[in-house]
Amino acid sequence: MPPLLPHLAITLGDPGGIGPEVIVKALAHPSLCQRARFTIIGLHTPLASAASAAGISPFWSAALDAPIRLVEPVTSFPPLPKSTTSGGDSSFQFCREAIRRAKLDRTHPEFVHGVVTGPISKEAWHMAGHRYPGHTELFAEQFGITDFGMFFAAPKLKVILATVHIPLARVSTTLTSARVLTTIRLGKRACHDLGIASPRIAVCGLNPHAGENGLLGTEDDSIIAPAIRAAKQESISASGPFPADTIFLAAMNGKYDLVVAMYHDQGLIPVKLLSRDTAVNVTVGLPTIRTSPDHGTAFDIAGKNLADPGSMLTAIELAITMASRS
Amino acid sequence: MPPLLPHLAITLGDPGGIGPEVIVKALAHPSLCQRARFTIIGLHTPLASAASAAGISPFWSAALDAPIRLVEPVTSFPPLPKSTTSGGDSSFQFCREAIRRAKLDRTHPEFVHGVVTGPISKEAWHMAGHRYPGHTELFAEQFGITDFGMFFAAPKLKVILATVHIPLARVSTTLTSARVLTTIRLGKRACHDLGIASPRIAVCGLNPHAGENGLLGTEDDSIIAPAIRAAKQESISASGPFPADTIFLAAMNGKYDLVVAMYHDQGLIPVKLLSRDTAVNVTVGLPTIRTSPDHGTAFDIAGKNLADPGSMLTAIELAITMASRS
Repeated sequence: MPPLLPHLAITLGDPGGIGPEVIVKALAHPSLCQRARFTIIGLHTPLASAASAAGISPFWSAALDAPIRLVEPVTSFPPLPKSTTSGGDSSFQFCREAIRRAKLDRTHPEFVHGVVTGPISKEAWHMAGHRYPGHTELFAEQFGITDFGMFFAAPKLKVILATVHIPLARVSTTLTSARVLTTIRLGKRACHDLGIASPRIAVCGLNPHAGENGLLGTEDDSIIAPAIRAAKQESISASGPFPADTIFLAAMNGKYDLVVAMYHDQGLIPVKLLSRDTAVNVTVGLPTIRTSPDHGTAFDIAGKNLADPGSMLTAIELAITMASRS
Repeated sequence: MPPLLPHLAITLGDPGGIGPEVIVKALAHPSLCQRARFTIIGLHTPLASAASAAGISPFWSAALDAPIRLVEPVTSFPPLPKSTTSGGDSSFQFCREAIRRAKLDRTHPEFVHGVVTGPISKEAWHMAGHRYPGHTELFAEQFGITDFGMFFAAPKLKVILATVHIPLARVSTTLTSARVLTTIRLGKRACHDLGIASPRIAVCGLNPHAGENGLLGTEDDSIIAPAIRAAKQESISASGPFPADTIFLAAMNGKYDLVVAMYHDQGLIPVKLLSRDTAVNVTVGLPTIRTSPDHGTAFDIAGKNLADPGSMLTAIELAITMASRS
């Protein structure tokens, strides 16, 4: 076992979704095993079905020293392409097991430097009694972290969100200068981990035209601008608040390395438009690395050998890059 | 004078901005004069300077029967590349004169079928005492219209906004089912005018994931969904509310002809990202046609022969298309 390669856990996601298929197709790229060791935490049956449909010879094994090892924390069952209690509980247990390994001492043989998570059905998690908005919140809770951020990497655009899963009407009252400053700091750290030493960070305004000097809202001047000033005092290259409708084009054209968005759709509309569904989601602020493809279980095409592994492959490569630098 | 060609007014915009330059460069395309007659409402001096810098021979004249006629409602003065009281008042008078002509009887020789507006400085309008958020509101007021909409055409994407220049925190309380339904109707009408007989209209949700069944907000179900149902009863092909972070990609890929966005940045982030600054802004709901390029005065590059006329040219062509169908 080459000791210098980073070790990543890959969770299967929902066994009935496209997780098994995109994992099999992504890990079949031979160059990956020269850059990392992998432990898939999932089930053999759906992996084998996906490999068979794709004409890929199974490359994983339960052997301790396998370069791609499979660990099965739950009993296998026939996966169904829909939200089920068993699928929800299984995919939850995969995550818990991956987190357990990420929390081990670095010298432990089961320790992993990071986790790449396959797509889960939130509805199935809820059916199984696991009431989390998603992976991000589960990881944050399990590591006891409150200052974390959702970061997205798309081709030509990186975005971090200051608020995430709240109603739009509550964004204005949830946003604080402290939260914006924390998000700027987390964004800088994520850029570091991706190899950008001094990221140029653009911060969005909240209101149309970034408030137009108070005519269209006050939060841009009263909440966001002070956070940017504080970040500058920490020698972070942050600027703004900029009108959100033009700043993403400037970032895409190379003027900025990262955009700090104030709410979910402000950041994810440009990410999804530019990524054409191949964006990678990174949880920032954890003591481990966590990346995932930015697509769902896609139950409608599961089991049909139609899924594109591009986003999963990018998520794995990003985790390798981050692990190699940590 | 060929009586069947539509007649368009083109306002100069701020004399110190890039309006004169993009108008000269756009109207220099010889094919335009085979499709419409034009009356530029502006000033000779900045037009002549822009033409000289671009190596274009002046093609306009004050003659009544000129295919491209120039009307000067104000006295000329040296334009400055910044917001000035005189620039603001001039650009305002250009608009008023264009509106006057658009309101004339269709048989009047000065009647115009539509107006293409050059970029103004809102700050200069304010300096000159003309307190309007922009062209849209001036046109609506002058025509006595309250149900109007801001519609944007970018390559592969058309968007109309249900709310425009208000703080984000007020979007939720401003949005009503009646307003959403009116916007859907106005959007359908704009698509008609552009030659799309039965537009497929996608309506955005307001909250992340369109509220996720009420978990992330209630307006999607309580305000937007009823408006969509009412539109369907009028045989409009409207659907949604859809998560805003994925619907624009679907529209761009041809699944929808129009997206109804709930607020300024939700609609304009994708428009500006896809248009690379060449979007066209259309005011819908007026008895006349009004289009404009979706860029500003760009005082920083004014007078340098650096401005790209692409957006102005598209705005003129769109107005011709709409006038030819009206």
